[in-house]
Amino acid sequence: MIDPLITLTTDFGTSDHLAGTMKGVILGINPAARIYDLQHHVAPFDVLDAALTIGSAYPYFPPRTIHLVVVDPGVGTERRPLLVSADQQYFIAPDNGVLSMVYERDPTASVRHITASHNFLTPVSPTFHGRDVFAPVAGWFSKTWQVESFGPVITDFVRFSLPKAKLDGQTLKGVVLRVDAFGNLVTNLRADEVPPAAAETGKIRVQAGDKVIEHFVRTFGQGAPGEVVALIGSTGFLEIAVHKGSAARTLGLGRGAEVTLELSAA
Amino acid sequence: MIDPLITLTTDFGTSDHLAGTMKGVILGINPAARIYDLQHHVAPFDVLDAALTIGSAYPYFPPRTIHLVVVDPGVGTERRPLLVSADQQYFIAPDNGVLSMVYERDPTASVRHITASHNFLTPVSPTFHGRDVFAPVAGWFSKTWQVESFGPVITDFVRFSLPKAKLDGQTLKGVVLRVDAFGNLVTNLRADEVPPAAAETGKIRVQAGDKVIEHFVRTFGQGAPGEVVALIGSTGFLEIAVHKGSAARTLGLGRGAEVTLELSAA
Amino acid sequence: MIDPLITLTTDFGTSDHLAGTMKGVILGINPAARIYDLQHHVAPFDVLDAALTIGSAYPYFPPRTIHLVVVDPGVGTERRPLLVSADQQYFIAPDNGVLSMVYERDPTASVRHITASHNFLTPVSPTFHGRDVFAPVAGWFSKTWQVESFGPVITDFVRFSLPKAKLDGQTLKGVVLRVDAFGNLVTNLRADEVPPAAAETGKIRVQAGDKVIEHFVRTFGQGAPGEVVALIGSTGFLEIAVHKGSAARTLGLGRGAEVTLELSAA
Repeated sequence: MIDPLITLTTDFGTSDHLAGTMKGVILGINPAARIYDLQHHVAPFDVLDAALTIGSAYPYFPPRTIHLVVVDPGVGTERRPLLVSADQQYFIAPDNGVLSMVYERDPTASVRHITASHNFLTPVSPTFHGRDVFAPVAGWFSKTWQVESFGPVITDFVRFSLPKAKLDGQTLKGVVLRVDAFGNLVTNLRADEVPPAAAETGKIRVQAGDKVIEHFVRTFGQGAPGEVVALIGSTGFLEIAVHKGSAARTLGLGRGAEVTLELSAA
Repeated sequence: MIDPLITLTTDFGTSDHLAGTMKGVILGINPAARIYDLQHHVAPFDVLDAALTIGSAYPYFPPRTIHLVVVDPGVGTERRPLLVSADQQYFIAPDNGVLSMVYERDPTASVRHITASHNFLTPVSPTFHGRDVFAPVAGWFSKTWQVESFGPVITDFVRFSLPKAKLDGQTLKGVVLRVDAFGNLVTNLRADEVPPAAAETGKIRVQAGDKVIEHFVRTFGQGAPGEVVALIGSTGFLEIAVHKGSAARTLGLGRGAEVTLELSAA
Repeated sequence: MIDPLITLTTDFGTSDHLAGTMKGVILGINPAARIYDLQHHVAPFDVLDAALTIGSAYPYFPPRTIHLVVVDPGVGTERRPLLVSADQQYFIAPDNGVLSMVYERDPTASVRHITASHNFLTPVSPTFHGRDVFAPVAGWFSKTWQVESFGPVITDFVRFSLPKAKLDGQTLKGVVLRVDAFGNLVTNLRADEVPPAAAETGKIRVQAGDKVIEHFVRTFGQGAPGEVVALIGSTGFLEIAVHKGSAARTLGLGRGAEVTLELSAA
């Protein structure tokens, strides 16, 4: 029997004790747990960024993995703590939409409101539920695996959809969802929204800020040095990239920037 | 029997091989060890920052956890390496005060000067005792658990107290101890120094830089967007926060900034 | 039998799902693997920086450790994926020189071109071989340990040498290889190239930018506060440092800056 796997996704950063303290709480309850950092640099309070992180990573983990997602601008208020079973894995998070991509991938997800407060640390501080609520629930759940004992199933949980691209004549208007570590601009334009001819001809017409991108490539290594190109990234969205450079810096664009795709131009 | 748990706290950052090399040394000696990062972004050479990190996190870890704390401006000089037993856990660190919060929580802590140099790597470089002294001691100790074999108990170890707030008439003068990832200003004013009436009335009077904060809240999610508020944080100190914003940026203040609390104003 | 140890070295940063997703792929194949981060902040696309990281850290890990090094500017192009056996350990990386320090330390290294694509995820995206090629190979290899089954031995793999210092009369001209977390400038001048008299007399003559450094010390804690000093760092190279300060900031120098050592001056 493999030791339980628990992952952490937070916006706590890595320059104080917060993420480490959560590891201590989990191990204090179940020293056999194996804890892995997904990331702690979600943009502060950014539920969409957290939803994209967990939604992109979790499908690769094995059954029974427990994912802790603590991006929690409503800490200490009435928002509910959740324990979710989906795709044979488990998710512990505040009820603020941070698991929206999980619900989208598995519409049969079972969502429970964690009401069994005897699992929490005492007292529960109003400002650090990662330590006092979510981590101890993960620790105890990794020992018992009894979802029912943590609280009742609910159906009115919070969820949102990714902002969808909008069709305007022959133009699809989208936005930059996030900027990755290389400065690539990840848009919300899906691979199946890009004209199939683009892959064949290598031509596309994307406007991003002042710049029109006309070269569609398969991978980052293509294109001339410094050239701005478009491609389908590893999570299935259109990305704007610069060969060995940063598209964000080159174009001066970031999250939320508008991107338009000409559908007739490939 | 659970594999030994070892945590790492350093100021090495995470953009070179230093922290990873320490993991290699520990695993090279005891491949069964389970190593967890507490944090590697302690402010460089900042013994107080490291003391706050380990002091806030360790109480949540299980008995027999071994904590390695390598913030070591005196590396290669005569400062002593220590092995400390406290609160049923173990600490390996330079003798520079970095364990002060541990000594404060457990006055019965047993502090040993590590003199058994056959546990060190050979040769010991004068600049990287994390690799050559502290990590190998952690590796060997996690196999033998024999504190006595590492060196004699000492009583003249280095320790310091947190800077205490000073009473000046009806005013308590404190400082910002640190800024967290959200930009919250964590002060050295303790929860029990705040007038109890503040919690009842929601009123307080704190001066920080040019700003007077008058709203006392329970948690970050209260207060109007952008409003600067005061609250008791999860480690029991008064914090200054901005709802979904950064108090450090809003007020232009950082570590060491003076903060004054009017005791008669709640 | 100890669970397999796998380390990760990438330039993915730690603010999205990429590194976490690789952990998921490995654990999805072999949930018993123990994965450790070496670092994810290699300078983007910087094969030399990655080569220095893995070359400095791996010798301390135990036999049979598997090191995954994914700094891969050529992702999706014809560059080959490699499985290397060296020094009783294993390395999985793109064939772009990132393992050069490994080949240098163990000239008997056996280098295989990974051709057994049934180990890869399906489909292989052209932009994220860390997830689709390298991580699954690590996962499967950690279960079978059969190097032969992954592909044939090759001898024309890519490797490079560290830039060597050049002798010019009585002057040795080198460069800054990298800047560490403390702002120390790590040069490519090796300990055995520094006149032995320097250690005895404490005198040296190094020019870096506008500054001439004349004080040679054993460790960072020596020298007056703010003084710029030279010393031999823990990886055996000459470093330029400032006592409790940053040499990079004080001198305004970074990677690639020229450094000259007067051989007759100690």
